[in-house]
Amino acid sequence: MTLAVSGGDLQRLRRLNALAVVSALRTAGPLPLTRLAGHTELARATIKEVVRDLVAMGWVAEMDPSTGGGKGRPARRYRFRAENGRVLGLDIGAHKVLAAVGDLDGEVLHVSRESITPKHSRRERLAAVDRAVDACLAATGTAPADVWITTAGSTGYVDNEGNVVVSRAIHDWSGVPLAEHLTGRVAGEVLVDNDSRLAALAECRRGSARDARNIVYLHIGRRAGAAIILDGVPLRGSTGAAGEIGLHPLFHLADSSDVLTSGNSGQAVFDAARRGDAAALNAVLRYVKVLALATAAMALTVDPQVIVIGGGFSRSADVLMPPLRAELETMCLRTPELRASTLGDECVAIGAVCLGVEHLNQRFFNPENGPVAPLR
Amino acid sequence: MTLAVSGGDLQRLRRLNALAVVSALRTAGPLPLTRLAGHTELARATIKEVVRDLVAMGWVAEMDPSTGGGKGRPARRYRFRAENGRVLGLDIGAHKVLAAVGDLDGEVLHVSRESITPKHSRRERLAAVDRAVDACLAATGTAPADVWITTAGSTGYVDNEGNVVVSRAIHDWSGVPLAEHLTGRVAGEVLVDNDSRLAALAECRRGSARDARNIVYLHIGRRAGAAIILDGVPLRGSTGAAGEIGLHPLFHLADSSDVLTSGNSGQAVFDAARRGDAAALNAVLRYVKVLALATAAMALTVDPQVIVIGGGFSRSADVLMPPLRAELETMCLRTPELRASTLGDECVAIGAVCLGVEHLNQRFFNPENGPVAPLR
Repeated sequence: MTLAVSGGDLQRLRRLNALAVVSALRTAGPLPLTRLAGHTELARATIKEVVRDLVAMGWVAEMDPSTGGGKGRPARRYRFRAENGRVLGLDIGAHKVLAAVGDLDGEVLHVSRESITPKHSRRERLAAVDRAVDACLAATGTAPADVWITTAGSTGYVDNEGNVVVSRAIHDWSGVPLAEHLTGRVAGEVLVDNDSRLAALAECRRGSARDARNIVYLHIGRRAGAAIILDGVPLRGSTGAAGEIGLHPLFHLADSSDVLTSGNSGQAVFDAARRGDAAALNAVLRYVKVLALATAAMALTVDPQVIVIGGGFSRSADVLMPPLRAELETMCLRTPELRASTLGDECVAIGAVCLGVEHLNQRFFNPENGPVAPLR
Repeated sequence: MTLAVSGGDLQRLRRLNALAVVSALRTAGPLPLTRLAGHTELARATIKEVVRDLVAMGWVAEMDPSTGGGKGRPARRYRFRAENGRVLGLDIGAHKVLAAVGDLDGEVLHVSRESITPKHSRRERLAAVDRAVDACLAATGTAPADVWITTAGSTGYVDNEGNVVVSRAIHDWSGVPLAEHLTGRVAGEVLVDNDSRLAALAECRRGSARDARNIVYLHIGRRAGAAIILDGVPLRGSTGAAGEIGLHPLFHLADSSDVLTSGNSGQAVFDAARRGDAAALNAVLRYVKVLALATAAMALTVDPQVIVIGGGFSRSADVLMPPLRAELETMCLRTPELRASTLGDECVAIGAVCLGVEHLNQRFFNPENGPVAPLR
C-alpha cells in the first residue's frame, strides 16, 4: 500500500476521525473505546489516538470508573463535555419573556420568566429581556463569558440582520434592532429569528414531530403565525419572511381569532363547544375554515408530512382538530397528519436553544476546521 | 508526523481526492496537471497519481496535444469524459412529447418532437413517447444500452413511485404507471417528476435564474402550474405534491386562463392589450389578479428570491409582468424579482436532463463510493 498522504490530507483525515468520535459520543452517550469502534468504523489504534487528542483539547472527558457499576473492573468510558459551554435561548412575546439556559447538547437547565403586556414600551420590554437573562444566568451559575451563543425568538418579521422589521402583535416593537441590543450583554454570537420558526424547530427536535423532516407549524391563539421545516431545517427564505402567509389578503390569519371569540376568551368558546353549545360550535367552525384556507395554501405549496398545531388554542386541540382535518381533506391531494404541540409555552425558548446548538455544531464541529478547541 | 492511517481511511482519502479532481475538470474544463493543483489544493504528486487512476478507470482522458495551439510544447491537458454515458430527458405534455439526449455534463445533443393532443388516448400518448425516444436515440447514435438514466416530466401530480396520480390537463392520463412503462425500454434507472418542477430546475441551472438558489416557477398558458426550488434543490415535498397550489379553492389557478381568453387565443388578447385595447387590458388585469393571489400565497410561504414566469404566455411577459409585479407588491413583505423564462418550450426536457445528471452525480461521484468506474 502506498502512503501518498500529504500533511494537509492527514490533518483533514484527523478532523474527520475526531468528528466521527465526537458525533458517536453525542448521539450514543458515554462509551468505552471498544464500543466506539462499532459506532465510528475506525480502527482501535486510531480511536485511541483520536480520543487522547480530544481529551487534551477538552472536548472529551474520561468518566469516573466508580460510576460504571457491575462486576469486575469496568472499561474506561468517555463522554462528550457538553458542559464546556452554555447556550442562551430567549422568547420575546407580547405577554411574556422567557430566558432558557442549556448546555452544548441542548439540554435545558433552567427557564426564567417575566410577565409583560403588548402595551409595554420597547424600553420596558428590553428591560424585561435583560432581567430574564440575568435571572436565568444566576439560577444556573452561568457567567456571561460562559455563554457561547444567544438565540432570540421574537414575534413579527425578523430580517437576516436580526432586526424586527414588522410586528403587528406588539406595540412599539416594529423596527427594534434586537440583535444589536443583545450583542455584548453576554459573550458569543447572537441570532434572532421569528418565534413561530423556533417553535417549529422545537417540535421537530423535541416535540410532537420528532419523526418528521417536513412540517408546517401553525401557532394559534390571540394571534396566529406559521413556520415551515423542510428536510429538518427551518425555512427562513431569502429575506427571513418564509411562513408569513398571514399577510395574504384572502386569509386574514393574523386577526382570525376575532371570528372565534367576539370578545370572549378562546378558552370559554372552546369549553362551550365541548359542551355542545350550538353558537360556540358555529364560531369554532367559522374559525377553523379561516385556519384551513391558510393552512391548505401552505400545505399545497410545500407538501408537509405533519402539521403541528401550537399556541394557546392548541390546548383545545380535541375541539379544533377534527373539523380542521375535515376541511383540509377537501383541499389537499394528500392531507398531512395533524398533531398538537407537546411542548407547551416553553416551545419558543426550547427552539431557540436548539437553533443555537445547531449553529455551534456547524461552527465547531465541521470537516473544514472542527472540532475546534473550546474557547477556554 | 505519525501516519496512523488505516486501509479504510486511505481508500476514503483517495476517493475524496479523485472526486476533487473530477469536480475541477467538470467545472473548469480541460486542465493541465499544474493548474489542477490550484483547483483542488492537492499536492502535485497526489494529483499525478489520482489522474493516472482516473484515466485507468475511464473517467478522465488525456487530450490530443495538437489541440493546444500556441507556441512551444503544450502541457498535457486532461478532461472529464462526459461522453461515457447518455442521459435521456422526456417532456410528456398535453400537446407535445419531447425527447432530449444529453451527455453526463447535461449538454443537450439533440431534441426530438412528436405532436399530440389532449384527446389522444393513453396508448397513443405512450406510443408517441416511444417514437420520440427512438428518434432521439437514432439521431444521436445512442444505443439503448448507452442510456444511464431516463427522466420524464409529465403534467399532473406524480407520486414517489413514478405514477401519474392525477392529471386534469390530459384525457385518459390519470393513473398511468409512467415509470413502469419506461423501465426497460432503455438501460438505466427511470425517474418521473412533475413537468413544472423540471422546468423550474432548468431555469435555475440553465435559464433566467442561474444566480438564484430559491425560486418559485409559475407555468402559465392554456393550463397553469407551479414549482419551487429551495437552496438549489427542486422541492418535491413528502409525497411529490409540492407546488400544487392550483388546487386551492380560492385560486382556481388551473382554469385561470379562461378569465383571460373567453374563447380567444391568449396570444390575441395579449396582442390587443399591447395595442391598448381597453377590453383586452381589462381581461389581462383580471387574469393577473388571479395569478397574483396564487403566486403571493407561495411567495409568502417560501419567500423566494426570484419568481420565474414560464409557459406559452411568458412570451407576453412585457404585457403581464408590470401589472403582476404591482399586484404582488401590495401583498408581499419583500416582493421577489419577477423574470421571464429564457428556455422556451424545451424547458421541461432540459430540466429532465439536468435532474438525471444530478442523480447520476450522487450515485457515481459521492464520497461514500465514488467515483465508480463507468458501466463499461
